[in-house]
Amino acid sequence: MFTNKLKQQWAEGRAAINGWLSIGNPLTAEIMAAQGYDSITIDAQHGALDYSAVLPMLQAMRASGVTPMVRVPWREPGAIMKALDAGAQGIICPMVNSAEEAAEFVSYMRYPPHGQRSFGPTRATFAYGGYGVAANDQVLALAMVETQQGMDNLDAIAATPGLDGIYVGPADLTLGTQEGRLPPAFDREEPEMIALLQRIKDACKANGIRACLHCGTPEYAARAIGWGFDLTTVGGDTRLLAGAAAASVATWRDLTGSAPASATKGAY
Amino acid sequence: MFTNKLKQQWAEGRAAINGWLSIGNPLTAEIMAAQGYDSITIDAQHGALDYSAVLPMLQAMRASGVTPMVRVPWREPGAIMKALDAGAQGIICPMVNSAEEAAEFVSYMRYPPHGQRSFGPTRATFAYGGYGVAANDQVLALAMVETQQGMDNLDAIAATPGLDGIYVGPADLTLGTQEGRLPPAFDREEPEMIALLQRIKDACKANGIRACLHCGTPEYAARAIGWGFDLTTVGGDTRLLAGAAAASVATWRDLTGSAPASATKGAY
Amino acid sequence: MFTNKLKQQWAEGRAAINGWLSIGNPLTAEIMAAQGYDSITIDAQHGALDYSAVLPMLQAMRASGVTPMVRVPWREPGAIMKALDAGAQGIICPMVNSAEEAAEFVSYMRYPPHGQRSFGPTRATFAYGGYGVAANDQVLALAMVETQQGMDNLDAIAATPGLDGIYVGPADLTLGTQEGRLPPAFDREEPEMIALLQRIKDACKANGIRACLHCGTPEYAARAIGWGFDLTTVGGDTRLLAGAAAASVATWRDLTGSAPASATKGAY
Amino acid sequence: MFTNKLKQQWAEGRAAINGWLSIGNPLTAEIMAAQGYDSITIDAQHGALDYSAVLPMLQAMRASGVTPMVRVPWREPGAIMKALDAGAQGIICPMVNSAEEAAEFVSYMRYPPHGQRSFGPTRATFAYGGYGVAANDQVLALAMVETQQGMDNLDAIAATPGLDGIYVGPADLTLGTQEGRLPPAFDREEPEMIALLQRIKDACKANGIRACLHCGTPEYAARAIGWGFDLTTVGGDTRLLAGAAAASVATWRDLTGSAPASATKGAY
Amino acid sequence: MFTNKLKQQWAEGRAAINGWLSIGNPLTAEIMAAQGYDSITIDAQHGALDYSAVLPMLQAMRASGVTPMVRVPWREPGAIMKALDAGAQGIICPMVNSAEEAAEFVSYMRYPPHGQRSFGPTRATFAYGGYGVAANDQVLALAMVETQQGMDNLDAIAATPGLDGIYVGPADLTLGTQEGRLPPAFDREEPEMIALLQRIKDACKANGIRACLHCGTPEYAARAIGWGFDLTTVGGDTRLLAGAAAASVATWRDLTGSAPASATKGAY
Amino acid sequence: MFTNKLKQQWAEGRAAINGWLSIGNPLTAEIMAAQGYDSITIDAQHGALDYSAVLPMLQAMRASGVTPMVRVPWREPGAIMKALDAGAQGIICPMVNSAEEAAEFVSYMRYPPHGQRSFGPTRATFAYGGYGVAANDQVLALAMVETQQGMDNLDAIAATPGLDGIYVGPADLTLGTQEGRLPPAFDREEPEMIALLQRIKDACKANGIRACLHCGTPEYAARAIGWGFDLTTVGGDTRLLAGAAAASVATWRDLTGSAPASATKGAY
Repeated sequence: MFTNKLKQQWAEGRAAINGWLSIGNPLTAEIMAAQGYDSITIDAQHGALDYSAVLPMLQAMRASGVTPMVRVPWREPGAIMKALDAGAQGIICPMVNSAEEAAEFVSYMRYPPHGQRSFGPTRATFAYGGYGVAANDQVLALAMVETQQGMDNLDAIAATPGLDGIYVGPADLTLGTQEGRLPPAFDREEPEMIALLQRIKDACKANGIRACLHCGTPEYAARAIGWGFDLTTVGGDTRLLAGAAAASVATWRDLTGSAPASATKGAY
Repeated sequence: MFTNKLKQQWAEGRAAINGWLSIGNPLTAEIMAAQGYDSITIDAQHGALDYSAVLPMLQAMRASGVTPMVRVPWREPGAIMKALDAGAQGIICPMVNSAEEAAEFVSYMRYPPHGQRSFGPTRATFAYGGYGVAANDQVLALAMVETQQGMDNLDAIAATPGLDGIYVGPADLTLGTQEGRLPPAFDREEPEMIALLQRIKDACKANGIRACLHCGTPEYAARAIGWGFDLTTVGGDTRLLAGAAAASVATWRDLTGSAPASATKGAY
Repeated sequence: MFTNKLKQQWAEGRAAINGWLSIGNPLTAEIMAAQGYDSITIDAQHGALDYSAVLPMLQAMRASGVTPMVRVPWREPGAIMKALDAGAQGIICPMVNSAEEAAEFVSYMRYPPHGQRSFGPTRATFAYGGYGVAANDQVLALAMVETQQGMDNLDAIAATPGLDGIYVGPADLTLGTQEGRLPPAFDREEPEMIALLQRIKDACKANGIRACLHCGTPEYAARAIGWGFDLTTVGGDTRLLAGAAAASVATWRDLTGSAPASATKGAY
Repeated sequence: MFTNKLKQQWAEGRAAINGWLSIGNPLTAEIMAAQGYDSITIDAQHGALDYSAVLPMLQAMRASGVTPMVRVPWREPGAIMKALDAGAQGIICPMVNSAEEAAEFVSYMRYPPHGQRSFGPTRATFAYGGYGVAANDQVLALAMVETQQGMDNLDAIAATPGLDGIYVGPADLTLGTQEGRLPPAFDREEPEMIALLQRIKDACKANGIRACLHCGTPEYAARAIGWGFDLTTVGGDTRLLAGAAAASVATWRDLTGSAPASATKGAY
Repeated sequence: MFTNKLKQQWAEGRAAINGWLSIGNPLTAEIMAAQGYDSITIDAQHGALDYSAVLPMLQAMRASGVTPMVRVPWREPGAIMKALDAGAQGIICPMVNSAEEAAEFVSYMRYPPHGQRSFGPTRATFAYGGYGVAANDQVLALAMVETQQGMDNLDAIAATPGLDGIYVGPADLTLGTQEGRLPPAFDREEPEMIALLQRIKDACKANGIRACLHCGTPEYAARAIGWGFDLTTVGGDTRLLAGAAAASVATWRDLTGSAPASATKGAY
Repeated sequence: MFTNKLKQQWAEGRAAINGWLSIGNPLTAEIMAAQGYDSITIDAQHGALDYSAVLPMLQAMRASGVTPMVRVPWREPGAIMKALDAGAQGIICPMVNSAEEAAEFVSYMRYPPHGQRSFGPTRATFAYGGYGVAANDQVLALAMVETQQGMDNLDAIAATPGLDGIYVGPADLTLGTQEGRLPPAFDREEPEMIALLQRIKDACKANGIRACLHCGTPEYAARAIGWGFDLTTVGGDTRLLAGAAAASVATWRDLTGSAPASATKGAY
């Protein structure tokens, strides 16, 4: 029977580490799925990929046992339902600013009479045993709160029936609430930002749903787990690759005493 | 006019660091090309990719100024010429075991009367100014010596007219020469293996061509540069990504005191 | 001059059999187009494919003479117009719940002054002679009625000017109207479901438009034609393939007396 | 620092020629980017391509220095933001019919507090130095006015804060305003159509924004520049290819006295 | 530790049923892998696919536990080694006509000192635990004997050290041995053809290797198992799909009394 | 029944014009196939494409009635047979230098007992009625003679049983025979080059096979038809597109008096 391991893990009181895929390629997905994450999210919003890459990436991760999720580009029923049909076991939905939008999002995630999801789990049926019966109960609906309006409606959003959790992207939350005073980034240290993160976490706890945070480093992520977050994303494929490569090149240049490449080095 | 920056850099006496692409994706290529490598090689032999990925990867690296090369699957004229037409500025050819094979390889790299390359640089013409005139002189022919037979014929191979260098893959060289006594790996520390690497480097120097070595770490690569190698590859996209992700997960698990994922972790 | 054979066939009073494509591949499209269907629909809603697959699949079916249609993911103008520009001769639009939504759908299908379709039939121009002039009159707009709200508004929907027909998906219609009393499936035998199908067919007839039904077996589909439906879909590529393969394996295991594979068999 | 060359060119008072890509292929993009255009737009609305092609096409044009833009399928935040994240330096948005719609479009283009763009410039960060800081000021928001309603609201649209210009598609403008009296086409000669073009151009000038026109021939485009337009698109890849091929075949048949192919010739 | 289930099954004395993939698509692969086959072979020779499809198809089948194999286009080291690196657990090599060719084929399958396979199992390392150590012993080398010359050298081929079995394609075997007297097809009933099949099976048994036969129907395949064959392929994705679809259309036309589509029906 | 229209046209004494595809895209193929060519060749040697593009391009051209051919990368049986199975009705094989090589090439094109082609026309069976029976007689084998050795063996090559014609690439023929005295190009005017072309054409006529020439302009191609050539290729998609775009930009810049783009213009 189709069961969501991440949901199960949460039910057992264990916090989770989530991986992040921005590269549209099934091999990077399979490699990441072998590194010990509890869940992995394919980012169809800001990641450099769309549905045509999501499908083989979900296939490539199936054998690993990792819980696969998808962040969709926007609160669009077509995109959300296609990701579910392809086998996503959770959806992260950006820019949920009100209880109405949260309810709309949840409705796309559930078959009637609990929602308005259309029936046709083409790949999910082949990949997961007993999908049709279990889906409504197993797939996770995670809403992103990342604007001032979203913060104003936080409690109402968190109380949305059927919502499983709130996922926070600190870069957008900073842009959306600080009116340009702070640059967008992860791993905020400013007290006003940490206060916002705590408020979101508290609202989740008060409503019995999960609090999830996008982080840049495992150290910050571990702090967030300590604050009570239930899931933290750490890094992501593009940053992990670029960081490791740049460090490797720098070490080589130090040890060999060689000057940097004459070519423009790029902007990361 | 089309000029090969790696060839120029070597002419100026500066050793080079080469990046390595095994993932068939133009975004990973563009990211890697921004990290400061002098050259980057797309591995069409053991990499998880073929010509259909090589083309957009070469395009994605063009703006960076990095010298792009391709390792072909085998000593096949079709594959070598297609990679050149697509814009590869160097070819690494596996399993060159004799002077005859080296000469054959070189002949595929040069237009008549210097070789038998067929004319039709479809993309290269659009990407590089004056390609047709300059190609014979600018594209690099690097042969891999990685068997006992290759070692036996090392001096004759290194003396092949038109060959620009020898590229060593230590894993195959170990398998090919040690009759199962040592497992395949990079960064050999065994005296007999270091002796082989030195012999290859010396044969290159004696013939005025370049010695190139595939390495796993920047530390070992820097030692090889110290021995006189002209180019070292360090790591590669799959290993850099897997290593950075695994380290990130391990740190998080240590700091949060959480058990590993129940899912099978994979085999890397 | 561009003419829609399915429209013509209907005008001659002949019911049609429609094929269904959920696999994103031009070869499966070309194979299915050779099996004798009158029309074939590419399912971009629940099928495991998106626009990047729709385009070559439409190209691969062109030579067959089959009328190609596309089911879009949702009532979105961008998706509908792109499918038409790519050469779809009919669009099946899911979840049309009111006359307003039906009118909106139809407006996306017709150039002004009859609608708001934007002009730019990039591929259709090359594939069909005289496309621009004939398109408004030839492309078919088929709305799906599959919720209780849709049933409540059935007559108003069926009366929408410019709508060519209603297409029924029995799985969603069951979920949408039976409040969980019945599981989603095709080929309903329950009297209350057959009554709904008959009501939709009657509303179509009363308004001079076509009634279309998604079926699982040719036997049920033939019954629906007998009831007065104008088009029935039978099966679909994934089900046909899975069913034929499973039957073949079962026969072999019976005849050879061999036990099933030890591997998990999957969930279909 | 990331700077938009087209914006700079306009600031210097120089009109621009824009190329147009409807074929979903990075090689055609790279070829077109080598022909001397100031900017090139990938048409994700009517072009035969979607995001999965847009990404490698943007990569393939990076080295050329041409300003890359994307026309999105519709006024959808997901599609607009994905194109920007992929590196588009300008967005052409179809069917903007009111000041509200124009403001909505602009809001998707700017990070808060100036808009509601979500942060995550995955590829743009690697391709352009200092992207995050400069993006709000550098990316161009071009709205299409192409309906009667849009003409009625022209001045209000042109006055939208943050809008950089209006882009006119004459085929849709004709369909949208002439109630079927004129067929859709570029390079209008009818006085009433030229009057509309002039009105749009004047509204742009009055509001200090740019006027852009889609043209079929360089001759007409040059006239439009004379009228005061700031950018003209000339031709497009499918028309340029089809036209040149057809002319070549016709010349050959004339010179050889051969009859046309017995095969159906197609409809362009 | 990496173990080949098919090899294990054979060691336990159980005959196997093999599926066949000619469609280049990971979803059809995942669907077929859920139907109960013991092993599934991707046909990179006559199948409509190449390496770029083989990779995601192997990934899509990993979770099923089916033993994945690849038929390569020809006896080429590059193609064989790439398929192995991608995770194929067996290789079927066409047109092996002599003991020399068989030995050459086997040499490409094994790392030194047992062969000349080059080391770099890029994907296999991530997919299978302990791949490097176990590969030589686990991957299956199956040679096709399908010409008169091959039949003449049958015993020598079957005696090749390291060869795991012979795979027979009856269509080519018919063409290759009958000098045009019989048309190419599977499931031969002619005594002279059955005699050839028996001779091949006997040569395999005499040399302790496996005999494998490509069949069209489960009934014929079961007979072959009765003769002593160790593996039979039954059908294949294109034939299963086309056959099921054609039967479905025919039933519908019979039941509804409708004439065939006016469109040309195609040639299968 | 499967018939090759180009072969038929030649039998009727009519010379042919061939189109040329170097862009790996089915839309460019479909566009080119609508421009009136008698046949169109996909260039898998120097074109920027491989098998994964050849397949959908052949599908996209099927409806046009144009005779589709493929130039393979090299004289490799795997590549030749895969192109035929995919539906190529003619193969152009590069670098045929002797009668032995010509015979080898022809053998890959014909089923036994006339050759060694392996049976499995996966797509061709669906696309062409009665393929299996007719193929040996209908598919065209065209060998390229383009080296001094090839010229030395010209008569023997032309006399190869089963060879249908010789296809000349003037750029390689120049490089291969003139020892660097002349640059590679089409449309040679040098008397020694015209003499070579005439010799090849005469050898073809003497042996009852077809003479085919790759040309740059329709004017030169028409002259070649006048000399007795049976088929001429004119231009090609990349050149037609680049030429038309560059001309369009130049006209615009002339008429508007604008300076060239400040960006580097590229190298074509």
